[in-house]
Amino acid sequence: MLLKVKNIPIGTGDIVIAVLCEQDATHMDLQPEDRILLKHKGKSIVETVDIIKKNNNTKKNYKQEMLTRGQIGLFLEAQYALNINSGETIEISTAQKPISLQYIKKKLEGKRLTSKELHILVQDIINKNLSDVELAYFVAGSYLQHMDMAEVTALTEAMVHSGDILKLPQHIIVDKHCIGGVAANRTSILIVPILAAAGLTIPKTSSRSITSAAGTADTVEVLCPVVFNLDKMKEIIMKTGGCLVWGGAMSLAPADDKIIQVEHPLSIDPTGQLLASIMAKKKSVSATHVLIDIPVGRGAKITDMKEAIKLKKMFEELARRLHMKVAVITTDGSQPIGNGIGPSLEARDVLWTLKNSSKGSIILKNKSIYMAGVLLELTGKAKKGKGEEIAREIVETGKAYQKFMEIIKAQGGTIKKPEEIRLAKKSQTIFAKKTGIITHIDNGTINKIARIAGAPHDKEAGVYLHYHKGAHVKKGDKLFTLYSDSQERLDYALETIKKIDGIEIR
Amino acid sequence: MLLKVKNIPIGTGDIVIAVLCEQDATHMDLQPEDRILLKHKGKSIVETVDIIKKNNNTKKNYKQEMLTRGQIGLFLEAQYALNINSGETIEISTAQKPISLQYIKKKLEGKRLTSKELHILVQDIINKNLSDVELAYFVAGSYLQHMDMAEVTALTEAMVHSGDILKLPQHIIVDKHCIGGVAANRTSILIVPILAAAGLTIPKTSSRSITSAAGTADTVEVLCPVVFNLDKMKEIIMKTGGCLVWGGAMSLAPADDKIIQVEHPLSIDPTGQLLASIMAKKKSVSATHVLIDIPVGRGAKITDMKEAIKLKKMFEELARRLHMKVAVITTDGSQPIGNGIGPSLEARDVLWTLKNSSKGSIILKNKSIYMAGVLLELTGKAKKGKGEEIAREIVETGKAYQKFMEIIKAQGGTIKKPEEIRLAKKSQTIFAKKTGIITHIDNGTINKIARIAGAPHDKEAGVYLHYHKGAHVKKGDKLFTLYSDSQERLDYALETIKKIDGIEIR
Repeated sequence: MLLKVKNIPIGTGDIVIAVLCEQDATHMDLQPEDRILLKHKGKSIVETVDIIKKNNNTKKNYKQEMLTRGQIGLFLEAQYALNINSGETIEISTAQKPISLQYIKKKLEGKRLTSKELHILVQDIINKNLSDVELAYFVAGSYLQHMDMAEVTALTEAMVHSGDILKLPQHIIVDKHCIGGVAANRTSILIVPILAAAGLTIPKTSSRSITSAAGTADTVEVLCPVVFNLDKMKEIIMKTGGCLVWGGAMSLAPADDKIIQVEHPLSIDPTGQLLASIMAKKKSVSATHVLIDIPVGRGAKITDMKEAIKLKKMFEELARRLHMKVAVITTDGSQPIGNGIGPSLEARDVLWTLKNSSKGSIILKNKSIYMAGVLLELTGKAKKGKGEEIAREIVETGKAYQKFMEIIKAQGGTIKKPEEIRLAKKSQTIFAKKTGIITHIDNGTINKIARIAGAPHDKEAGVYLHYHKGAHVKKGDKLFTLYSDSQERLDYALETIKKIDGIEIR
Repeated sequence: MLLKVKNIPIGTGDIVIAVLCEQDATHMDLQPEDRILLKHKGKSIVETVDIIKKNNNTKKNYKQEMLTRGQIGLFLEAQYALNINSGETIEISTAQKPISLQYIKKKLEGKRLTSKELHILVQDIINKNLSDVELAYFVAGSYLQHMDMAEVTALTEAMVHSGDILKLPQHIIVDKHCIGGVAANRTSILIVPILAAAGLTIPKTSSRSITSAAGTADTVEVLCPVVFNLDKMKEIIMKTGGCLVWGGAMSLAPADDKIIQVEHPLSIDPTGQLLASIMAKKKSVSATHVLIDIPVGRGAKITDMKEAIKLKKMFEELARRLHMKVAVITTDGSQPIGNGIGPSLEARDVLWTLKNSSKGSIILKNKSIYMAGVLLELTGKAKKGKGEEIAREIVETGKAYQKFMEIIKAQGGTIKKPEEIRLAKKSQTIFAKKTGIITHIDNGTINKIARIAGAPHDKEAGVYLHYHKGAHVKKGDKLFTLYSDSQERLDYALETIKKIDGIEIR
C-alpha cells in the first residue's frame, strides 16, 4: 500500500513509530502496536503502528492538521533512516511482530524462558523493537511469575552482552552495590579510596538519584566531573586503582536501563530483574569480587530480615553461576547513614569523614570501614578477621584521603576543603518539640523533604541532621536544618514537615 | 518552571502527552509517565511526560529539529485545550499521578479492589488519564491475579457507567453474545428477526471483525447501514422490535474498548475482563435477558468442556449480581457454522437460510433456531420445551425473513436477492486430494485464508465451504472456493493453503 509521508518535526527518542489514521489502519487490518515495513529507495525499516482515532470534538481547523486518509506520520528517526521528505510516497506492508513477543507471552503464562529466548528478548529491547506496552507485560510477567535462577543467569548474561564491557588487565576486580532506600548512604565514596589505597582495583560506576535526594554520582560531581566514556574511565583506573564515575554516561548493560524505565510508573521491581540488573552492571565492568549491601529496617526497601536472607541466598546463587565471588551483608537500613542529605551536604560529610575530622559522620565511617574490610577479606588482601582493622588503619592514617584526592584529580577535579563547599542561601532549622530519645528517623520522609528543598538538581540544597537515632535531645535542641535556594521550596518543605515529621522522639 | 511551546502538528488521539528534552526532565525531576500541570491564560491541563533522549547518532540538521532545552513539545489535543501557539511561554509544574495507579499496583500485588476504586479506575481510563503502559499493568494484574466476582461486578458496573446507556420502555429486553473464535457464526442475524417477530425487543449491537474474516457488523453492512447513534438506534428498535447495528459507532461501555486495545499486542484476555466486557455491553443496552453462547471444540477459543462449564458458572454468578437473567449454552465450536466466510458470502448465506432455500446453511439455521428457542423460554414467551418449535415455525413460515426485511429497511438498506450480492472477481476452487470423511475444518486457518483473500475490508472476498465436517467426499470433489479481487492475494492464499490445509480428510 502506498501512502504519502507527513513528517512530524520531533523524535520519539526511542522505538520507531509510524502514525496512521483510523480508516487506513482498519483497511490494512492494523491495530496499535502492530508492525509495518516501510520501503523507500532501497532502504527499509520496521515501525510500530500508532493510530489516531477520529476526535469528534476537534475544531475544524485542527481537523485539517490531523492525519488524513492516505497519509503516514513519521517521526524524525524514521525520516532519517529512510531519508524521506514530507509529501513523498512510501510503500508500506505488514511486518511480523518481533519473535520475543511470544517469549513475553510465555513468561506471562508462567513458563520458563530459555537462555536463547532471553538473549533474543534483550536484543529486541536494545534494538528498540519492543514498545513500552510490550515491555510492561514482560516486567509484569517477571514480577508475578517465578523466574528461576537459570533464567536470571541467562538474563544477566544477555544484559551484559547488550552493551559495552570494561576490560582490565588485573585478575582481581572489586565492586559493590547497595540495594538502596537509605538516605545519605555514601559508603562507596569512602570504600573506593580505601580499597584503591590497599592496592585493589575498583571500577566503581554509580547512578544519579532516581527517587532519593542524591545518588553517589550526584555527590561526587560536587567534587569532580563524573561523566566519562569507557576509555577515559579505564585510564583513571589504571592510574589510581579506582574511580567514581556516572554509569549512565556509558553503555553498560543498556537493556537494564530500558527495563527500569518501564518499571518506574508502577514502581515495581521484580526480584529476578533486580538481581540481573545489579549483577549485569558488575559483570560489565568485569568485576570478580562483589559486595552486596542489603540495608534492613523500618523505612528501608527491605523491612524484615527473612526477606533479606532470601535475597542474600539468591545473590549468592547467581554469583556462583556467573563465576563471581560475592559477599552479601545486611546492615541497618532504619535511618540515614550520613549527617548531610543532598549532594553538597554529603560531599562535605565525606571529606570530613575521610579527614578524620570530628565534623565527619561516625556512622558513615564505621559502616564504610566495615564494608571495605569485608572486601579486603573476600579478595584475600586481608586475613580472615583482619579486614576491618586494615581498612580502619588506611582511613585513620590519611591514606584513604590521599587516594581520594588522587582520584578526584585524575577525574579532573580540584581539592576542596569541606567548609568551602557552598550550601544553599536560605536555611531553616527545625527544633525538638520535646525532650526524649530519637526513636526513628524516616529515610523516605527525609529524602522527600530534601528533594522538596531542591536536591539533587540543586546540589546545594538538602537536609542536615544534627542527631541520629538513639540520641537524647532536650526540647528546643536543633534536630535538623533545611537548605534551599528558593523561599518557595523552603516554605513547601516546612509545610510538609508540619504534616509528616520524619523524626520520632519518645 | 517556564518553557517555550513547540507545537507538534499531529494529535495523539488518546492520552495527552507533553514532550521534554532529557536535561529539562532531569532538572525538574521528571521521568517518562510522570504527570505535569500546564497552565496558560487561565486554562490548565494535566499531561503525561514523554522524554526525548539525546541521540548521539543524529545528524546535525536533525539535531536542530529535536527538542532543545527550554522547549516543551505539545500535540494537537493540548494545543487545542490551552489555545496556545508555538513560541508562547507556558508554566509547568509537577502534578500528582492519577490515584488509580495505586489501585493498579494493588491489583498487581493480588489485593482486592473495592467498588469505589474500580469506578475511579474506569473513570481515569475514559478520561484518558492513564497511559497505555499503566493500563497494560492493570491488564497483566487482572490476568495473573485473581479477580473475584465482587470485583468483576463492580468493574462491569463501572464500565456501564463510563458511557451512554440505551433506555427503552419495554420491561423485557433481550440480548445475546458469542464468545467467538468460530468462523461464519452469524447466528445473531437470524436470531434478531426471529425474536423481534415473536414480539420481543432485541437491541443487538455487534462488532466488526478483530481477528476473524468478518464480524456481524461487517456482514450486515453488506445489506444495510450499521452506523447509527443511540437515538437512531432507539428509533429502529421502537419501529421494528430489533436492530443489527455496529456498537463501535456509539459510546457504550467505552472503557472496555480501551482495555481491549491494550490487551491486543499480547493477545491476552483476562477472564475477569472478558466477563465484565461482555456483560457491560449488555447492561448498557438495558438487557434483562441474555444468552451467552460458548462454542467448545478443537480450534475454538475454548477447547475443553471443563473450562466452558467454569466460565458458564461465572457468567451465571455475574448475571445474578447484576440482576439480569442469563442462559449460558455450550455449542459445537469445532468448525465454521455457515457455508460462506467473509461479509458478502455470509450475507448470502443468511438470506438464503431465512428464505428457507436449499442454498442456505442447515447448520446456521438449526443453531440459530435452537438459540432463539432458549431465549423464548428464558423470557417466558414460550413454555418450557416449546421454544425451539416456535422459533422454527417463525423461520419456516417466512415471518423471520419478513421481519429481517423490515429491519433492513428501517436501517436504510434495500431488499437484495442473495444471488444479486456480488462476490470478488477472481476465484479458485480447492479440490479433495483423496476420498474419505471430513474429520476437521480448522476455524483459525479458514479465517486466516479468508483474510488473506481480502476479507473483511474487501467485503466481496472470502471462502465458501462446499462441505462441512462429517461429509463423505470423493477425490476430486470441490472442497472450498476462494474469492478475491486481487490475484496477488489469491496467490498468497493458495500458497498458504499448500502449507496448512485447514481441512482434514480421513
